[in-house]
Amino acid sequence: MKEKVKSKKEKVKAKGNPSFAIGVDLGGTNLRIAAVDARGKLREKITTETRVARARDEVITEMCRAIQALATKQKKTGGKLAGVGVGVPGIIDLASGMLRASPNLPGWEDYPVREEIERRLGTRVLLENDANAAALGEKWLGAGRDANDLCMLTLGTGVGGGIILGGRIWHGMTGMAGEMGHINVEPEGPPCGCGSRGCLEQFASATAIERMARAAAAGGGAPALARVTAKRGFSSETVCRLAESGDPAAQEIFGQVGRALGIVVAALVNTFNLPMYVVGGGVAEAWDMFSPAMMEEVRRRSFVYVATSSHPAGGRTVIARAQLGSDAGLFGAARLAMQDRRG
Amino acid sequence: MKEKVKSKKEKVKAKGNPSFAIGVDLGGTNLRIAAVDARGKLREKITTETRVARARDEVITEMCRAIQALATKQKKTGGKLAGVGVGVPGIIDLASGMLRASPNLPGWEDYPVREEIERRLGTRVLLENDANAAALGEKWLGAGRDANDLCMLTLGTGVGGGIILGGRIWHGMTGMAGEMGHINVEPEGPPCGCGSRGCLEQFASATAIERMARAAAAGGGAPALARVTAKRGFSSETVCRLAESGDPAAQEIFGQVGRALGIVVAALVNTFNLPMYVVGGGVAEAWDMFSPAMMEEVRRRSFVYVATSSHPAGGRTVIARAQLGSDAGLFGAARLAMQDRRG
Repeated sequence: MKEKVKSKKEKVKAKGNPSFAIGVDLGGTNLRIAAVDARGKLREKITTETRVARARDEVITEMCRAIQALATKQKKTGGKLAGVGVGVPGIIDLASGMLRASPNLPGWEDYPVREEIERRLGTRVLLENDANAAALGEKWLGAGRDANDLCMLTLGTGVGGGIILGGRIWHGMTGMAGEMGHINVEPEGPPCGCGSRGCLEQFASATAIERMARAAAAGGGAPALARVTAKRGFSSETVCRLAESGDPAAQEIFGQVGRALGIVVAALVNTFNLPMYVVGGGVAEAWDMFSPAMMEEVRRRSFVYVATSSHPAGGRTVIARAQLGSDAGLFGAARLAMQDRRG
Repeated sequence: MKEKVKSKKEKVKAKGNPSFAIGVDLGGTNLRIAAVDARGKLREKITTETRVARARDEVITEMCRAIQALATKQKKTGGKLAGVGVGVPGIIDLASGMLRASPNLPGWEDYPVREEIERRLGTRVLLENDANAAALGEKWLGAGRDANDLCMLTLGTGVGGGIILGGRIWHGMTGMAGEMGHINVEPEGPPCGCGSRGCLEQFASATAIERMARAAAAGGGAPALARVTAKRGFSSETVCRLAESGDPAAQEIFGQVGRALGIVVAALVNTFNLPMYVVGGGVAEAWDMFSPAMMEEVRRRSFVYVATSSHPAGGRTVIARAQLGSDAGLFGAARLAMQDRRG
């Protein structure tokens, strides 16, 4: 099998502070690599269509080759490499640098990922859960720029989460903190890949939206939804467009998304009492469709939210949409390498 | 109305480090005050039956009088007062030292409680949520002695919570963090005093156990429960004794308690990835009755728990029963005053 790699390079003029870090986002479909300077300026970004589902060693080889090429090029323009951060989907054991669970990276579990990348690059690498990296990115350059503590939910194929306390990722004991996608919403709801039932992920991920749309179309009570999805498929984008156009069945689906998110955000507000909660990921594009139901649940279920909403300046709870889109994890991974250097 | 104050003094010999702090636990029924030294040794404890539901000013007057008497006496034995910590039921605004919600202290809301106590005592006072104080107490001298980070649920009339990160109470933005009693368990479950429905408090508090017992007795399918509660009332202790004696209806109630606790503990494990979660409060006396169902839910619903349960030494998640009983909050309040002094 030949390796299929298509690269799109977005060059950004380098200037000012010569130090840069490399952030990697090893997503479910794309491998993206960026050189970012200490002020958050993107110097160069590479998006490859490396199929991450293929053999682990090929993906790592391709990734290391691309990182090295980018680093070499950036160094020529006078920059100094501060470090490399890699965001991966799955739960990571921080001490060993291994993935302990990685549904989207078959064969990567219990393999010394971090060590292997470090060996090939000959430099220290920070391995991080992708949703944690996204939360750090949003804290650094996005919705959370002014907050030192925040909690982020990333709604994609699954639902990831990241917690930032004191400007840094809260890792917990072994690096597995932030799995808010698996907070329970309906104790006997749809089965979840984690072994439980009715997790947030089963209501607020792109996968869940597709499942709900299929069920609605099959149920017979959603003619427009059935018609459009028969033509364009059941993607969450299609269902979102339909909801925007006023289709009640599609709107009901996003009502469910919002309700589940609201239940979990309320739990997080009652537990953490943070200044900010951020919702990002691809599904957050449908913010206008799900946020009214989400906010209704939060107001109903979080007396801490209500108490802080009447709080004097500086004490309000903000629930906001992420601002960096799919680049959040890339910037966050780069930031990690910088924080490590300074820490 | 005359003030009814009955005092029981438990004297403990003072020795060693002469510095002491005073911890106060302003409970739903009792006002308890203790002098504790820096090593956690109880020097003296006073339990009064001051009815805290009576007029706010009378309660504060009585409390300040008792604190002063205790401090004066302890100083005579050569000790130096390090500070005063007061644990109160309700959510506290840290900046203002006011209660923002206090179902068990009618008339105390939006009143400068901390300032008023400080004015009368002429010394700095730390006001703290009672469940936060209990969590700090368990961290200092109880189940969490060896953990620097933990999360505690206190099952009493309501369900309180406290989070300890880095050895200190996690207060959040305004001091309202730790309200895990209001994490959702059943979205459309029994209405809760907080405005939501189906909160943990509606399944795992003494009040919830009484409600479930009444419903079971009224339902006709629980003859032994109906017979015993008709004689002894519906208290959670009575239901616990019945469950211990093998009554299936009473055991089913504690199965519900355990299931709800398990759902919430699983959410906390997935979110925080802490080394320890502690369950305390009066209802924790029934640990043997509810913990099997709780642990079953945790294993089913928290893949972080499962991943860490096979983790090498030092990385395991421990879920444990509290060790200090009703003194946890008292010790925690005293500890607060010491931490403040050193910080």
